[in-house]
Amino acid sequence: MTATPHRHFDDALAQLKDRLLQMSARAQDALDRSVRAVLARDTAAADLVLDEDSDIDSLEIEIEETVTNLLALHQPMARDLRLLLAALKISNDLERVGDHAVNISISAKRMTEGRMIAPEPELVEMGRLAREMLAAAIDAFVRGDADAARAVCRQDDQVDALHRSMFRILITHMAEDAHTIGAAMELFLVSRNLERVADLATNVGEDVVFLVEGKTIKHGVGRTP
Amino acid sequence: MTATPHRHFDDALAQLKDRLLQMSARAQDALDRSVRAVLARDTAAADLVLDEDSDIDSLEIEIEETVTNLLALHQPMARDLRLLLAALKISNDLERVGDHAVNISISAKRMTEGRMIAPEPELVEMGRLAREMLAAAIDAFVRGDADAARAVCRQDDQVDALHRSMFRILITHMAEDAHTIGAAMELFLVSRNLERVADLATNVGEDVVFLVEGKTIKHGVGRTP
Repeated sequence: MTATPHRHFDDALAQLKDRLLQMSARAQDALDRSVRAVLARDTAAADLVLDEDSDIDSLEIEIEETVTNLLALHQPMARDLRLLLAALKISNDLERVGDHAVNISISAKRMTEGRMIAPEPELVEMGRLAREMLAAAIDAFVRGDADAARAVCRQDDQVDALHRSMFRILITHMAEDAHTIGAAMELFLVSRNLERVADLATNVGEDVVFLVEGKTIKHGVGRTP
Repeated sequence: MTATPHRHFDDALAQLKDRLLQMSARAQDALDRSVRAVLARDTAAADLVLDEDSDIDSLEIEIEETVTNLLALHQPMARDLRLLLAALKISNDLERVGDHAVNISISAKRMTEGRMIAPEPELVEMGRLAREMLAAAIDAFVRGDADAARAVCRQDDQVDALHRSMFRILITHMAEDAHTIGAAMELFLVSRNLERVADLATNVGEDVVFLVEGKTIKHGVGRTP
């Protein structure tokens, strides 16, 4: 058997999925470290996230170039075309996850300076859920599994509810003790960033459903402030 | 003269740019109304934004379909290919602007219930700047003007500085009077959403520079929490 152009395209596609998995693993690590930086006041973890964000950015640029080249070289049709465009969107979403981890790390660094308030279990749970959703969404993309993708989208409501709880809890803290206002605002930002990561994972899930089934289930999310 | 495939592609491209301009105009209107809803406690303006967000979402889906079809039908190379991919990203950014306007409108509606604090001139200026940047970025895309796009990116620092001012001002309000905490948190969310709109306009500007000059100037932004 000789290598056909189609065979070459399939190899390139497998390689592209592999790069997306790598990028996703980096984004998840960054997210973990940023949440740990907040909870354990771990400045070194925060600095690592800030230092390594450019690696995630580079992976996005690499994936963009790969997709552009594959489009120009193979001029794929129908499902292959949609797969490449989805990969482009997903790499963009992962880059944004990296930015949220950076934002959380910056909050973590600012919080080591001021008065601390107890880290809320809600925040721990949000971090865990956001990371899990992200991993599951990318996995659903790589396997082309619409059911798994739909399950990710359903989890988004849980994260939104946790974010609303955080809002109420932090307002109570601030009202009871004005000295906690600075830290509470930072924790609110952290919560908001985690909620956005869950939204991005949901976006990926929606893209996977569209890719596999051709159905648009978008735009039911992103409404929690 | 008969219509050549290339002629047809150029027409389709002009039409696509026209749709992006329409989408941008809708996103700018939504942004304007949402800021007015906050400043004038105008619930009707907020409701209009919530009602009309699905129109912006529909435009995004339409643009995605148009780009996918153009890619499959004309299999464009080099600059045309990059132009189509940029249009896809920009429509995604504009849809996100619409979501930020929705978030701001939801804050506006919640703020009519609680205690009011004086709308800050910083917020007015942020709304004006974010809208102006967005309009200029889309205009730069349509005209392929890298200098204009670069000017948009430079404005982002102003919006970031205003957002940091808002943070300090609102913390002061909250510390002085615990009754303002709810409203201050909402205004902080509004400020954050406007700052994100300016980031999205900057993303568009960066995409235009890349498109015109082939230079990546990305990933210098998005670091303000």
